[in-house]
Amino acid sequence: MINKKAFFNMSYGLYIVGSKYGEKLNGQIANTAFQISSEPQTIAISINKQNLTHEHILKTNIFSLSVLTQTTPLDFIGRFGFKSGRDTDKLSGVSVKIGETGIPIILENSSAYFEAEVEKTLDVYTHTIFIGKIVNADVLSTGGPMTYAYYHKLKGGAEPKMESKTENTEVKSEDPAADVKYVCDICGYVYDPKSGDPDNGVLPGTDFDSLPDTWVCPICGAPKSEFSKV
Amino acid sequence: MINKKAFFNMSYGLYIVGSKYGEKLNGQIANTAFQISSEPQTIAISINKQNLTHEHILKTNIFSLSVLTQTTPLDFIGRFGFKSGRDTDKLSGVSVKIGETGIPIILENSSAYFEAEVEKTLDVYTHTIFIGKIVNADVLSTGGPMTYAYYHKLKGGAEPKMESKTENTEVKSEDPAADVKYVCDICGYVYDPKSGDPDNGVLPGTDFDSLPDTWVCPICGAPKSEFSKV
Repeated sequence: MINKKAFFNMSYGLYIVGSKYGEKLNGQIANTAFQISSEPQTIAISINKQNLTHEHILKTNIFSLSVLTQTTPLDFIGRFGFKSGRDTDKLSGVSVKIGETGIPIILENSSAYFEAEVEKTLDVYTHTIFIGKIVNADVLSTGGPMTYAYYHKLKGGAEPKMESKTENTEVKSEDPAADVKYVCDICGYVYDPKSGDPDNGVLPGTDFDSLPDTWVCPICGAPKSEFSKV
Repeated sequence: MINKKAFFNMSYGLYIVGSKYGEKLNGQIANTAFQISSEPQTIAISINKQNLTHEHILKTNIFSLSVLTQTTPLDFIGRFGFKSGRDTDKLSGVSVKIGETGIPIILENSSAYFEAEVEKTLDVYTHTIFIGKIVNADVLSTGGPMTYAYYHKLKGGAEPKMESKTENTEVKSEDPAADVKYVCDICGYVYDPKSGDPDNGVLPGTDFDSLPDTWVCPICGAPKSEFSKV
């Protein structure tokens, strides 16, 4: 028996993985990163095969990892999380430096960064694990790191930092569908029709069935089919 | 340039990995675990090659992962963390169930557990990454998961939960060595002579130089040579 809710108990940080191919720079949100060996210093990241970042790292064998601080604004995360770098220049206007390996390192809202050369890869169904040997690393600020759990709470609106536009436009509907919440079976994110998903263009008051088929979980990217009624 | 302090910014959970070989059951602390794919559900863990757990998993290709709750007592963690299961029966007296694959699953102080069959392994210097396909998972309690950062804080004594025996025996020494703290370059743990490391038999008042050569960082297991004066 596999109770999907067990997965919600795992703890993660929140990072941006920087990559590059030719002139094209990119960054994407990741929560799956850990250190492996200390001698030499290696880290592992897990990247979805559909992502542009995956394509870049396979071609160049380098990536950067920036640790987001707890004060990172939600729209900054949304910028790197839920759009593909194929359609947009995600790093435009973002404070970035080019590292020793030529890779972009995101400095904005980051407490530390790593620059890594891929030594090994492991194919795991929909994802590839990249093992990177650290060639460069530094601390940028003393702000505590953002954790996935904390971000989750912010997205769920449980904290006062939720954007005011959402509060101002909250809909009190008599339509019963507007009261039916759906939970993402993958990550536990709750879609509440009253709040919608303004970061991704979904207005408050949109019931779950009316979400476009292309809509995905703003936390983990799972499709609508992975959601269950709460 | 590699600033080791950058690694302290990564976020982790805190888990016990359960394993078995023949009649021998074992459990060890791990902070490196993440989900990879959702379809099928796979997780990765990273285990030091010197550990008994490593030997077990290589032989049997199965492991369990229990997520520790935030209220887990420090001595419970110490029991699984800093002794080898080769010398002691770590599961004696601990609430455990035998899972579908025959592996022990630690139920005590756990908010959720997973049982996994190893599908792939990856050799990374001192460690092996095991990719497990989940065959069984459930939620045990709603207590929030212990994070590595929180555990770190508890070990450092910054929280009031520090064991009373430590407080009662705190030494006010006039020996200057007793004031010199050392930081673990690997994980950031601070050894304070005033507190010692009672979980591992080091009495308060023991200066760093007097620690036995076999003493290791109680957080990450690094040897004394990895410590620097604060």
